[in-house]
Amino acid sequence: MDTISTPAGEVVDALGGSAIYGALSGSYFCPVKIVGVLGTDFPVSGLELLQQHGVNLDGLDFKEGKTFRWSGKYHNWNKAETLNTELNVFADFAPLLPCSYKTCNSLLLANIHPELQLQVLKQIETGAHLACDTMNYWINRCPEEVSKVVSRVDVVFMNEDEVKAFTGRTDIFSAAREILSLGPQWVIVKRGEYGSVALSKNEMYFAPAYPVKNVKDPTGAGDCFAGAFMAYLSNCKELKRACIKNAVLYGTVLASMNVQDFSVNGIIGRNKAQIDADKELLIRWTN
Amino acid sequence: MDTISTPAGEVVDALGGSAIYGALSGSYFCPVKIVGVLGTDFPVSGLELLQQHGVNLDGLDFKEGKTFRWSGKYHNWNKAETLNTELNVFADFAPLLPCSYKTCNSLLLANIHPELQLQVLKQIETGAHLACDTMNYWINRCPEEVSKVVSRVDVVFMNEDEVKAFTGRTDIFSAAREILSLGPQWVIVKRGEYGSVALSKNEMYFAPAYPVKNVKDPTGAGDCFAGAFMAYLSNCKELKRACIKNAVLYGTVLASMNVQDFSVNGIIGRNKAQIDADKELLIRWTN
Repeated sequence: MDTISTPAGEVVDALGGSAIYGALSGSYFCPVKIVGVLGTDFPVSGLELLQQHGVNLDGLDFKEGKTFRWSGKYHNWNKAETLNTELNVFADFAPLLPCSYKTCNSLLLANIHPELQLQVLKQIETGAHLACDTMNYWINRCPEEVSKVVSRVDVVFMNEDEVKAFTGRTDIFSAAREILSLGPQWVIVKRGEYGSVALSKNEMYFAPAYPVKNVKDPTGAGDCFAGAFMAYLSNCKELKRACIKNAVLYGTVLASMNVQDFSVNGIIGRNKAQIDADKELLIRWTN
Repeated sequence: MDTISTPAGEVVDALGGSAIYGALSGSYFCPVKIVGVLGTDFPVSGLELLQQHGVNLDGLDFKEGKTFRWSGKYHNWNKAETLNTELNVFADFAPLLPCSYKTCNSLLLANIHPELQLQVLKQIETGAHLACDTMNYWINRCPEEVSKVVSRVDVVFMNEDEVKAFTGRTDIFSAAREILSLGPQWVIVKRGEYGSVALSKNEMYFAPAYPVKNVKDPTGAGDCFAGAFMAYLSNCKELKRACIKNAVLYGTVLASMNVQDFSVNGIIGRNKAQIDADKELLIRWTN
């Protein structure tokens, strides 16, 4: 649950968190299953919203106590200042996957401690497309564990600062090559308002950001990108460039929808036709 | 003549200036004619180089005295700190076009005082594609004159900071719309390492930057972009989106070649096949 202040306004104890942003975004492309822990103060309306989006909640753990809370303030649109983090019931969370989750087509390890990401990876049966997100906090504090996760997934999501911090390189292209040498098939370098670049050993794909008139709240944009991306990939057998391109474009569209409103309000109740229309515009603007 | 220091090295009294960067870049796409003033200290080798590139020098004015000099230092790759500017023979320059220049297909008003740009515009016969570049220095000091130039050209080249400063808007898309309302058909917003966006009233085209491993000297990148862009357009009757797209891509390729070496060394002695191959890669990476 997030308390967020941006130049466009603020919200208190609003629905948030990587898993929820990712699940709602992904729900437009495949049935989504979510793993996480909630306190008893989590609003029932949040669970109803996930269910309306067809999200399977079997992997949610409900614990006596308060839900994880984050509070941040955006002075500009690029970076939030963290005002407060309360782990609460998340403090001793150990992700345990229901049996029905272990044979998924596509797994997104959203941004948490890399040790927890590794615990989830151990529970997944082979055959799924695996992806991880992370953040500078983990890259700085436990780089070896992040490397371990990176070496075991097919797709890595990082922003420009993160690929540079993780590799010590000063340009994103040599940084991406170094990450690819650890094992992943694709690195997706996110560049905020400048879009993203998907890189594999032999291929590259540049996508612009979808132009947004009034940004209200950038929180969760990366999670929405990754959620839509991986949910779309659940329909692809191999991670060929054409699939990655579509995944990037859908990720871009959902991220742009997300930043136009606070909390998850930008990504709920959308329809697939609208999403496809935005994706077609992105293609038109780059062709 | 430029004296430049970057994290990759330095050069003293090297060939430079918007007109020279633009002319050499443009020379790969059409015969170029150049207008400007030089002091008697200007090296003959510089004139030879322009002639080797087929550049017509009839519009060059040679004056007793020293050539214009600029000296700058790049602490990072995005922005130069001006250490020194000596106007020298440029101080009382009034551009006078030879008769053979007045019926060109394509005119680039490179970055100088907007009053001088207006003087050139008055000498051009109708029918040419007209474009202007500028910089924050002029936008801040003589915004009305810049507006006058902008309202009389077909294509405006500005970077992100410049479109924002010129319009007072905080996002490039509404800034571009405001600039278009003054008259131009296209605004080309340059975003450095993030590429560029071409915008008209009803169309948009996003291009990435060409990835460069070792940047040595960013000086003149914008001039190379604009020079290649306008020289390519001299072959186009109307400024349709397909022409603008090609112009942007050629501009991008020449700008990327330029930053890989000091002074004009990155853009001389190239061949068209190499330029076309780089352009095709840009298309492949965005398709």
